Amino acid sequence: MSRPNKLIPPKELLRFLKEENVFIIATHVSPDGDALGSSIALSMALESLGKKTIVYDKDPVPEFYKFLPGSERFTDSIPDVTRGGGQLSPLILLDCNDAERAGIEKLQFASSAVIDHHETARDFGAIKWIDPKSPATGLMIFYLIKELGVTVTREIATNLYTAIAIDTGTFRYSNTTPEVLQVSAELIEAGADPSYIAENLYETWTDSRFRLLQKVLNTLEIHNDIAITHVTLEMFRETGAAIADTETFPGFPRKLRSIKISVLFREIENNYYKISLRSKGRDVNVAKIAEKFGGGGHSNAAGYRIRADFKTAKEALLKAVKE
Amino acid sequence: MSRPNKLIPPKELLRFLKEENVFIIATHVSPDGDALGSSIALSMALESLGKKTIVYDKDPVPEFYKFLPGSERFTDSIPDVTRGGGQLSPLILLDCNDAERAGIEKLQFASSAVIDHHETARDFGAIKWIDPKSPATGLMIFYLIKELGVTVTREIATNLYTAIAIDTGTFRYSNTTPEVLQVSAELIEAGADPSYIAENLYETWTDSRFRLLQKVLNTLEIHNDIAITHVTLEMFRETGAAIADTETFPGFPRKLRSIKISVLFREIENNYYKISLRSKGRDVNVAKIAEKFGGGGHSNAAGYRIRADFKTAKEALLKAVKE
Repeated sequence: MSRPNKLIPPKELLRFLKEENVFIIATHVSPDGDALGSSIALSMALESLGKKTIVYDKDPVPEFYKFLPGSERFTDSIPDVTRGGGQLSPLILLDCNDAERAGIEKLQFASSAVIDHHETARDFGAIKWIDPKSPATGLMIFYLIKELGVTVTREIATNLYTAIAIDTGTFRYSNTTPEVLQVSAELIEAGADPSYIAENLYETWTDSRFRLLQKVLNTLEIHNDIAITHVTLEMFRETGAAIADTETFPGFPRKLRSIKISVLFREIENNYYKISLRSKGRDVNVAKIAEKFGGGGHSNAAGYRIRADFKTAKEALLKAVKE
Repeated sequence: MSRPNKLIPPKELLRFLKEENVFIIATHVSPDGDALGSSIALSMALESLGKKTIVYDKDPVPEFYKFLPGSERFTDSIPDVTRGGGQLSPLILLDCNDAERAGIEKLQFASSAVIDHHETARDFGAIKWIDPKSPATGLMIFYLIKELGVTVTREIATNLYTAIAIDTGTFRYSNTTPEVLQVSAELIEAGADPSYIAENLYETWTDSRFRLLQKVLNTLEIHNDIAITHVTLEMFRETGAAIADTETFPGFPRKLRSIKISVLFREIENNYYKISLRSKGRDVNVAKIAEKFGGGGHSNAAGYRIRADFKTAKEALLKAVKE
C-alpha cells in the first residue's frame, strides 16, 4: 500500500528549524487537542535535537487534556528570551495563522514560521506552511518530525494521535482520508493507545457537566429540521458547570435523523447569548448563518453572540435560517 | 510500513469456497453491523465468482442498517436448496459459532464452515476459522476476499468498513490495532465513505428514541462508581420507542469520570428486567457479574435478565458488584 504523502514540509521551514536554537512555540487561545498535541510534539522533537523551546498558550490547558504527556510544558507567560536587538526568540505559530488568535500580536519576534491547516490565511509569518487540505496540524507535524529525522516516541505519538483524532472526530468526519488512518496506524505502532486516548477525551466528564447535559437535553425544541437547545445562567448555577463544559453539547441533537442543523444558545450574561451551530452533511453551511450575526466558522460548525432575550434571539435565528 | 497480516484464512476454507457452488450464509439473531456487513460482503464476493448465495438471518435487518448496499439480500426463510440426500446446501456461519445463535440448529446442511472472532467456541462446523484475536469478523472476511482474488468494490468496502467500525467503536476500543486502521484505509481507497457511514450509524435516531434517551438520563442514580439508569414500560409507551432503541444507552453514563460500571435496567414485562452492564478500562469484568444472574458477555459489555421489581433487582445488582 503506497502512502500518498501529500504533505511535504517546505525546505525553508526545515532550514529555519535546523539553524535556530531557541524557539517560542505558540498556539491559539481556547486550545483544543490539535493545538495542544501539535505544540507538545514539536517541542519534544526539537528538544531531542538539542534545541530549547518555550511552549506558550494564553489560556490554561483544559483539565481533560492534562493526560497528554508534556502538557506541563505550557506556560502563559513568555520569558525574556531575546536574541539581541530587543526581539524575542524565533516564533513557531501552530494551528492558527494569526498572531491575534494566540494573543501575541503585540510582541516582536526575531523571525517567525506558521504551520496551520485553516482555510482563512492572514498575512502573518515570514515562513508559512498553511495547507487547508490537511485534516489536522498534527498530521503536518508528523511529517515535519519525520523530515527532521526525529524518532516518534510514545509520548510524541500520543500527542499527535490525539491531535489527529480530535480534528477528525476520531475518524468520523469527511476529512478521514486513507492517509489519516495510515499515519494513525503508525502512531499506534510507535506507542499511542487508542482506547486510553478515547477514554480521556470522551469519558472523563464531571458530575456537574453530565447534570447540565441532562438539563440541556430537556430543553430540546424541534422546528422542522432545526433542533434548538439552550442553557440558562440558572442551569450553570444549579449544576456548577462552566461554559467550557458545553463544548460538545450542540452535537447531541445531530443524532436525530430529522435534524439538519443543531443550535445551542448559552446565556453567558443576562440577555447575552453565545450561540453554536452544527450541521450535518454538505447541504447547509452554518458559517453563512453565523456571519449574518457578525460571527463565523466552518461549513459544519460556526458561532456568534447576540444581546437579546432568548425568545428574540431564537426567532432571529429561525428567520436567518429560512433566508 | 509493513502489514503484519496475522489473519490467514485456512486452506481448507478456501478450497471449500472454491469447490462448492451454492452457499447459505447465516449469521446470529439481533444482527449488528459486523454480522450484517460480513455476510453481505462475502455474498457479493462469492457471487462475483459465479456462485449462488442465500443470505439468512432469523431477525430482520434493523432500520438504521438498511443503508448497507446489499442489505436487501437478507431473507428470514431458507428456500429448499438441496444438494441431494435431503440436505441443504453448504452453510457458512458468520460472526457466531453456534447454530442456535443463528436459529438454524434444526436444519441439516450438506457441509459447513464457521468464520468468527468470538471467544467462546462451540463444537459446530466441519471447517472452523475462529480467531478471537481478530477485532471483527469483517476483518477476516477482508483477508478471505483478497485470498479469493476478488476485487474489493465500493459496495464490499462499505460493508466491511461498517463491520470493522462497529466492533471497534469506530476505532475507540482497545482492539483498534494498527492493522485495523491500515485495512480501513484500504477500504476507504476502495470507496468506503467514513463520514457517510458514521452519520448512518450514529446520527439517524428517531424522535422517539431521542425522547426516550432524555427520560432515561433523567433516571440516573450514582452509587459510588456505579451508574444506574432504567427504562419503564411506561416510558416505552409514552415515547413509542422500542427496546432495540436502547442498545447504546448504557454507554452514556460511561462519560462520567467517576464511573467504572454503567448499568441499564429495561422493563420488558411487568417486573421482568433485561439488564445491560458496561465497564471502562480493564479493571472490572462485567461478564463475571452477569454470570451470577445466569447471563454472560464480554469483560466490558455483558447482560442478564431477572424477574423482580426494580428496587429488588437494583439491590441484587449492587450486592453482586460489591462481592
